[in-house]
Amino acid sequence: MAIEASRESAPARIRLGMVGGGKDAFIGAVHRIAARLDGEFELVAGALSSTPDKARESGRLLGLAEDRIYDNFRTMAAREKRLRNGIEAVAIVTPNHVHYEAAREFLKRGIHVICDKPLTSTLADAKRLAALAEKSDALFILTHNYTGYPMVRQAREMVAAGELGELRLVQVEYAQDWLTEPLERTGAKQAEWRTDPARSGAGGAIGDIGTHAFNLATFVTGLTLESLSADLDSFVEGRRLDDNAHVLLRFSGGAKGMLWASQVAPGNENGLRLRVYGTRGGLEWSQEEPDRLWFTPFGKPKQLLTRGGAGAGAAARRVTRTPAGHPEGYLEGFANIYAEAARAILARREGRPVPRDVVFPTIADGVAGVAFVEACVRSSKRNAAWVTL
Amino acid sequence: MAIEASRESAPARIRLGMVGGGKDAFIGAVHRIAARLDGEFELVAGALSSTPDKARESGRLLGLAEDRIYDNFRTMAAREKRLRNGIEAVAIVTPNHVHYEAAREFLKRGIHVICDKPLTSTLADAKRLAALAEKSDALFILTHNYTGYPMVRQAREMVAAGELGELRLVQVEYAQDWLTEPLERTGAKQAEWRTDPARSGAGGAIGDIGTHAFNLATFVTGLTLESLSADLDSFVEGRRLDDNAHVLLRFSGGAKGMLWASQVAPGNENGLRLRVYGTRGGLEWSQEEPDRLWFTPFGKPKQLLTRGGAGAGAAARRVTRTPAGHPEGYLEGFANIYAEAARAILARREGRPVPRDVVFPTIADGVAGVAFVEACVRSSKRNAAWVTL
Amino acid sequence: MAIEASRESAPARIRLGMVGGGKDAFIGAVHRIAARLDGEFELVAGALSSTPDKARESGRLLGLAEDRIYDNFRTMAAREKRLRNGIEAVAIVTPNHVHYEAAREFLKRGIHVICDKPLTSTLADAKRLAALAEKSDALFILTHNYTGYPMVRQAREMVAAGELGELRLVQVEYAQDWLTEPLERTGAKQAEWRTDPARSGAGGAIGDIGTHAFNLATFVTGLTLESLSADLDSFVEGRRLDDNAHVLLRFSGGAKGMLWASQVAPGNENGLRLRVYGTRGGLEWSQEEPDRLWFTPFGKPKQLLTRGGAGAGAAARRVTRTPAGHPEGYLEGFANIYAEAARAILARREGRPVPRDVVFPTIADGVAGVAFVEACVRSSKRNAAWVTL
Amino acid sequence: MAIEASRESAPARIRLGMVGGGKDAFIGAVHRIAARLDGEFELVAGALSSTPDKARESGRLLGLAEDRIYDNFRTMAAREKRLRNGIEAVAIVTPNHVHYEAAREFLKRGIHVICDKPLTSTLADAKRLAALAEKSDALFILTHNYTGYPMVRQAREMVAAGELGELRLVQVEYAQDWLTEPLERTGAKQAEWRTDPARSGAGGAIGDIGTHAFNLATFVTGLTLESLSADLDSFVEGRRLDDNAHVLLRFSGGAKGMLWASQVAPGNENGLRLRVYGTRGGLEWSQEEPDRLWFTPFGKPKQLLTRGGAGAGAAARRVTRTPAGHPEGYLEGFANIYAEAARAILARREGRPVPRDVVFPTIADGVAGVAFVEACVRSSKRNAAWVTL
Repeated sequence: MAIEASRESAPARIRLGMVGGGKDAFIGAVHRIAARLDGEFELVAGALSSTPDKARESGRLLGLAEDRIYDNFRTMAAREKRLRNGIEAVAIVTPNHVHYEAAREFLKRGIHVICDKPLTSTLADAKRLAALAEKSDALFILTHNYTGYPMVRQAREMVAAGELGELRLVQVEYAQDWLTEPLERTGAKQAEWRTDPARSGAGGAIGDIGTHAFNLATFVTGLTLESLSADLDSFVEGRRLDDNAHVLLRFSGGAKGMLWASQVAPGNENGLRLRVYGTRGGLEWSQEEPDRLWFTPFGKPKQLLTRGGAGAGAAARRVTRTPAGHPEGYLEGFANIYAEAARAILARREGRPVPRDVVFPTIADGVAGVAFVEACVRSSKRNAAWVTL
Repeated sequence: MAIEASRESAPARIRLGMVGGGKDAFIGAVHRIAARLDGEFELVAGALSSTPDKARESGRLLGLAEDRIYDNFRTMAAREKRLRNGIEAVAIVTPNHVHYEAAREFLKRGIHVICDKPLTSTLADAKRLAALAEKSDALFILTHNYTGYPMVRQAREMVAAGELGELRLVQVEYAQDWLTEPLERTGAKQAEWRTDPARSGAGGAIGDIGTHAFNLATFVTGLTLESLSADLDSFVEGRRLDDNAHVLLRFSGGAKGMLWASQVAPGNENGLRLRVYGTRGGLEWSQEEPDRLWFTPFGKPKQLLTRGGAGAGAAARRVTRTPAGHPEGYLEGFANIYAEAARAILARREGRPVPRDVVFPTIADGVAGVAFVEACVRSSKRNAAWVTL
Repeated sequence: MAIEASRESAPARIRLGMVGGGKDAFIGAVHRIAARLDGEFELVAGALSSTPDKARESGRLLGLAEDRIYDNFRTMAAREKRLRNGIEAVAIVTPNHVHYEAAREFLKRGIHVICDKPLTSTLADAKRLAALAEKSDALFILTHNYTGYPMVRQAREMVAAGELGELRLVQVEYAQDWLTEPLERTGAKQAEWRTDPARSGAGGAIGDIGTHAFNLATFVTGLTLESLSADLDSFVEGRRLDDNAHVLLRFSGGAKGMLWASQVAPGNENGLRLRVYGTRGGLEWSQEEPDRLWFTPFGKPKQLLTRGGAGAGAAARRVTRTPAGHPEGYLEGFANIYAEAARAILARREGRPVPRDVVFPTIADGVAGVAFVEACVRSSKRNAAWVTL
Repeated sequence: MAIEASRESAPARIRLGMVGGGKDAFIGAVHRIAARLDGEFELVAGALSSTPDKARESGRLLGLAEDRIYDNFRTMAAREKRLRNGIEAVAIVTPNHVHYEAAREFLKRGIHVICDKPLTSTLADAKRLAALAEKSDALFILTHNYTGYPMVRQAREMVAAGELGELRLVQVEYAQDWLTEPLERTGAKQAEWRTDPARSGAGGAIGDIGTHAFNLATFVTGLTLESLSADLDSFVEGRRLDDNAHVLLRFSGGAKGMLWASQVAPGNENGLRLRVYGTRGGLEWSQEEPDRLWFTPFGKPKQLLTRGGAGAGAAARRVTRTPAGHPEGYLEGFANIYAEAARAILARREGRPVPRDVVFPTIADGVAGVAFVEACVRSSKRNAAWVTL
């Protein structure tokens, strides 16, 4: 039932800007929630869209001051640098091909960069950016978000501690189904840019999700990939980038592996899954059940380690917010009560009736609950006699 | 891959106060994260502890203005009411026995109340508070948080739509193991007040978690409990409140049920689970896998409905933040990257080295990822020849 | 990859007769497969139906010699006793109301009886039969087949070894859905006799499957049921016996429990599930995944013990046929009862005592099962009052 | 609750011989249980070991007549052929390198052969045997036992019916852990011959279990493998055959796949698992939960089809023995191969054509399996080059 001491500390709040992530962008909203969750960042500036009107509207919705809403990231970088309370960090959440130019502007001014993956759309850009980052005082944080899961940290810690012995096998996969049909021809934006070489780079599924799988595998194992053999396909007719990738892996030191990335495997929602085997044991983790980690020491019963539960070590605990059995997902459920409350409160504020689809437990539920408890106690005292409510 | 349009709208942000929830309190931190997640509330005042020093220290940590940090909720209610920008809503997150008095102070001044469950420690208090709430203009929101899960909303919608036919059976349970041993005698605060009749009321496990189970069952089914037979036990010697409850249920209309609440069942972390059966089908939901809902229409294959996936209806969608397969838990994982970034950035700000246990993907990972993609594309073009990295 | 040395030994084969189990009978075929699986029994005689033509046709299909096909069990018992190679054991697989009379005929002639459950349709018959069995030299084996599963044996061994500490809670359930609609009015034989008090006795679901749940709970825990409170229902209109049972349990020594038996819970195929919790740990087993046993020592990671795998002890191994990961099922579990019977019968044949590790349900379990059903019916008629056993 | 009408019919019982499978042999005992389960075969002769004493002792234990216990399979084939009641079929359960010679002796005398996999230890032998089989009147049944599972039949039927649309992806794996350490150096017989090229042929894990995976994939999908790229490893030092295989697959018609076979993956007991994806949906089946089949029609909720349950079609039902929820296992799946063999043999005996719905792996599957192993070895030796089949 223990929970890490809150890291909340408003006075220290970090001033954050954002490039991309305007209205309707999926990943931009995710970044903002992530930045807000622990109260450590404060969003104060943004170049939220390359379309000026949309940039402005999005900035206003987010409550940015008018003069901190920018039309483009160059102006933003330059001006924020000069402000006394300018941003200390920027989140870059644009399509891949913009990452390089945007990151460069902030890095060279010493503003920390939090950048969505993949880093860039070409290797040449990636290397140039890396060179720049090395010279800069600023930090560069890449949001390979799956490395943030507590049980991924746990897995990494166990491998590093030698609990699996010498590593032999790495089986990793990331399967989705949302591109099973030619969604990009229906006007779906997420599908459009992800299947467009100009905006995504040379890789389709391999770039969009294969990189996550690769990153997860190396993050947990600490192994270095030495060579690979890849068979990429575009199963959907007319698709310009791969939608399925089969890859054989050879790591330094002799470990071998397989990587499968697919966006045309019906029934797979977001199936990122890693299995690692060594001379002494195995580990298995699946993103769709992130709070669980299977550990199978050779010749002993299988163990199911749970986030917050027995067996979870220091690396997991320090990024854990809720006790065992409260899926991180619990917070979102909890937040939904607040969200419903907000809808009701705003309606009241504006003199509107509370919308009919707003649902939250009320005082009547509270009375019923207490009545229930008292009835249970009464019944139990009378040898479990039936009592009415 | 669709996600609900962001509800973020900073200009409309609701001014929130909090009673209880000072440093080290579990549920207070949960409420604050929940309030912050969508950016709809702004915490501006608090009576965060009944100990003045702790109240002050906690308030500062949270960045409250000095004059909005209160020693007690009475002063807070009175003063905030008079302020031009006083709080519009208050979250009450104290132990149970304080709920009544605190809620009363705000309700009678027309300030919306968001109150933790159970409502009060006695039924008499609950009824008095309900009477007060009825007369007040303010809203009263009880955080039976499990009703906020999208697939719980889905279940409720399906029952209401008649997909289960006429209901016959309600099997609900909430099993934990953290009180298997006399934890309350080791100085553990959470255990102390939860096993103390003066602070919790007449119910132990039945009040702490049995009420959640009961609330969930009635929320989903819409049934009214008519009578019950309860067998409560305190298995741990010397414990003053029940730590296990076995209850038989009879609902209006003839449905029957069983409720089991336990805090002494080793291996159960937070095992809230509901099964409902009717003449036409059944539903099953478990809190530890909140994104899944089993639906079993009689005589047809079982269906696994997933949050954000095919089959999820309007009630679930409107409280959904991430696409199918991204467990709500994804956001916490994502937020951990931001949290690590914050630690690093603050260290830089203060001229300290970045702590060694801070872990986040860097630009090197980004370069490696792009190199990986390019190697895959190169290999695939050469008939999956081996290429080195 | 190890497998128990084969128990196959044809020269020692036991001569078996069968009462009931003609063409189209479900459980008769199951018994025959179970008897045949390890090659220890040879079916040589039968009174397979109370309808002479069907008895003859069924006997021929099974390859019985013409003069070992009988019209009724009385003739069979009398004549087989006189034959030089007459049967040594008989399997009784008729509807419940015939068990008593049939068993009596063989018992009194010293022929071992393997009898389907529940023992009889009334408690009076059960007690009379027990008295008879006590006087007889013959063995009485009751096919509570779920006690034959290796991981059920494992669970029992672990409880007996104190791995759970002092027992506190027993949660057992057996849920099916096949009687959700009035199947007995469609001419379905299995449904007809199971809902007919004349053939099934006073209990419907509670007798048909509730007894299995009760037997499993006591087999694994070794606890004695002291009193119960039962709420039985017939949800399907016009049904003459209960199709759902909710029962609270109190065991000697202070453990408490819940038992749920239902045949109207859509989505449940054969959902027999047991959870046991003590001061030191918990166990969980589900019939639909019989090769797995969850063991959760308090404060340690959960362990998944598998049949044939690490952690499976002597009691499980001696009734295991295939290596870990090669699933065993219902028929193998059933066959283990026959295998244990064979070991006991061969010991008797050779004048040896039955080996101490041979375990099978006996007539005492049968009497306890019928007493349980009658107590449930009695309690339910008195508004779920507590009744002692 | 319905169960297939019993196929038991003693008068028609098929006279069976066995080569190999003496005391302590694992797979011999499995074959005998499988042959016995439905009562269709009677074991009457055997050359159970190449060691005469062991052959005799094993024969006696099984109750064979003294003159039907043979020292070697050649004598047995010759003499049984001349007997009036000689065997009609023989089960060959020796190590791989003996299959060819033994099968030849029986095939050329018109005695039906039921042979364990892989067919032979070299492709040349396999082809010679196939030529022989084609000329013979006798049937040749290969015990790729996993094709006997009802839900594997169900999967095959669904693919054939077009429920998945056009196939794109086949992900198959078979992971075990029992050779994680050099077990073959501890005197363990199963490990010894399986890692010995002289007795197993050129393939280690790829031959022992990779062939099962390959066979399962083609059985279910009906696809023809066109080319492959294989990376085989012997992770345990000094091991003479591969213990891990990573294989990329290309099928006629454009489908692609991955096959992973490993005997050094700790925590995997007998992890055979198949996933197939087409334009319209996906299927997933795992041997360790054989009664379940996931079906995920694109854009609809996932369905869990269960053996005996709603959604199971004719192909599954005809090899099903127990109702839904009463698990069937490895032995029942194996017995289904024998049951299919019995149907075919009885048809031959009676001069009828083999019924069209009778399905079992044949010598063609055996040749394909050996060709697959040799292709994998060839590819791996050439640095995982693509080789055609």
